[in-house]
Amino acid sequence: MAADELPAGIGTASEALRPMLRRDVASAALGMVVHLDEPGRAVVSMIVRADMVNGFGITHGGLVFALADTAFAIACNEDENTTVAQGADISFLASTRPGQRLTATAERRVRRGRTGLYDITVVDETGATVAEVRGRSFTKNGS
Amino acid sequence: MAADELPAGIGTASEALRPMLRRDVASAALGMVVHLDEPGRAVVSMIVRADMVNGFGITHGGLVFALADTAFAIACNEDENTTVAQGADISFLASTRPGQRLTATAERRVRRGRTGLYDITVVDETGATVAEVRGRSFTKNGS
Amino acid sequence: MAADELPAGIGTASEALRPMLRRDVASAALGMVVHLDEPGRAVVSMIVRADMVNGFGITHGGLVFALADTAFAIACNEDENTTVAQGADISFLASTRPGQRLTATAERRVRRGRTGLYDITVVDETGATVAEVRGRSFTKNGS
Amino acid sequence: MAADELPAGIGTASEALRPMLRRDVASAALGMVVHLDEPGRAVVSMIVRADMVNGFGITHGGLVFALADTAFAIACNEDENTTVAQGADISFLASTRPGQRLTATAERRVRRGRTGLYDITVVDETGATVAEVRGRSFTKNGS
Repeated sequence: MAADELPAGIGTASEALRPMLRRDVASAALGMVVHLDEPGRAVVSMIVRADMVNGFGITHGGLVFALADTAFAIACNEDENTTVAQGADISFLASTRPGQRLTATAERRVRRGRTGLYDITVVDETGATVAEVRGRSFTKNGS
Repeated sequence: MAADELPAGIGTASEALRPMLRRDVASAALGMVVHLDEPGRAVVSMIVRADMVNGFGITHGGLVFALADTAFAIACNEDENTTVAQGADISFLASTRPGQRLTATAERRVRRGRTGLYDITVVDETGATVAEVRGRSFTKNGS
Repeated sequence: MAADELPAGIGTASEALRPMLRRDVASAALGMVVHLDEPGRAVVSMIVRADMVNGFGITHGGLVFALADTAFAIACNEDENTTVAQGADISFLASTRPGQRLTATAERRVRRGRTGLYDITVVDETGATVAEVRGRSFTKNGS
Repeated sequence: MAADELPAGIGTASEALRPMLRRDVASAALGMVVHLDEPGRAVVSMIVRADMVNGFGITHGGLVFALADTAFAIACNEDENTTVAQGADISFLASTRPGQRLTATAERRVRRGRTGLYDITVVDETGATVAEVRGRSFTKNGS
């Protein structure tokens, strides 16, 4: 396993095993892999499994969101303070199926005081956009 | 198992095993149970498992969203047409932990032409609100 | 002028001229009238003027939003603390034209800690829904 | 008046007086000026007037939204088809006061089929971000 393809449950590429990510068992259980972890920026991918489809046979929207949410959480925890998701909006643009690889790239759009906005784009293995998410963060112990 | 507590992957209470829900393997894999399935209204619950927590030890936001999204999908597929989620906005109001039961109640707010809006409230076992979701739907083959 | 139809710039029906509303010159300039002002609930209306249409000849979406935003501001300032809008999402469901009366009804959906969510429905004079807004509030000096 | 500073009600810089914009009397009444009008991209500014403040003495959120909405409308009407706003989400990041110049820059984020997403950033005269809007468009007569 390459250094840039650590499971979300085990570690990250850019820092020495941040405790937050080491313990993200949900992301690990969903097979997410962290490719990039920088302040304000993160890339996480996941291969859609057969047990991830909804009643229409396509990837469950909740799991597309979960992938984006993990990338968001990594990107918005930029420093020693705890930053939580206040909310997020997702637009679904295309459906995917088992076997496809989804990659979520989160980038800080703006941070002002304790509030932050992050854009998370989810693409498939061809680079086509599957979903766009805008996350709203709130930093707990700082300004 | 009571008639009103069928897993999302097996069937629903109010109708004779709608194909859409019988095949929702993602919701079934997450342990979701459908309690109500009426046109414009749905109730789905899930017990938070140990493998559903994020790096902060609380329920992964993506899985809270997934629960709401399943309730939304059931509520918005009100007739013989296929209705898909265009998008949704979630606000996170409180965190939860393994062992807690989350219940999502989806209700149609308005439907106009092929567009619909649905409110989905997620509460914990005490009735306290955990998250609020507004889903946007688009009906494919009808008006 | 009936007691329940005071301009937004002059006063409100339920309280003795709350300073916040007396000074809302923007809402007054747009012809808004406050019909109800209770903690967590507000009703505000506006007649669409000829100078409120966009390039398609229909009511400018920004002014539909402005009406909802005023109702939201009144509803979410429930006590002696200052509560501000963090953000809001609007879905446009139908277009309107000059001469029509738009009425926005704001209702608290949930308030938890310093965060609040309010639903604002904008209808025309026939009661048909024109827009749905969900507002997110933050209370500055309280808990 | 420079060619790149035509009022929204009179014309635009990049095209020969597109009918849609010539008739946008609402934007003109609010003093908006269009600086850029390209497919998928628009820049519009407005100076906050004394009659644009709310009860807190700051720019009414509805008018900040209206500025962004006009930029969004110009950017998303990229071709001969009519494209309408389905909805939009705004996050308020800072307050402004009369005399300040607000500038909204809209950019297409993604367009897929008849659906589009546009990011609109509103800054003050110092370049500080005042609000972030994500607009959702729907194209009526095309694909």
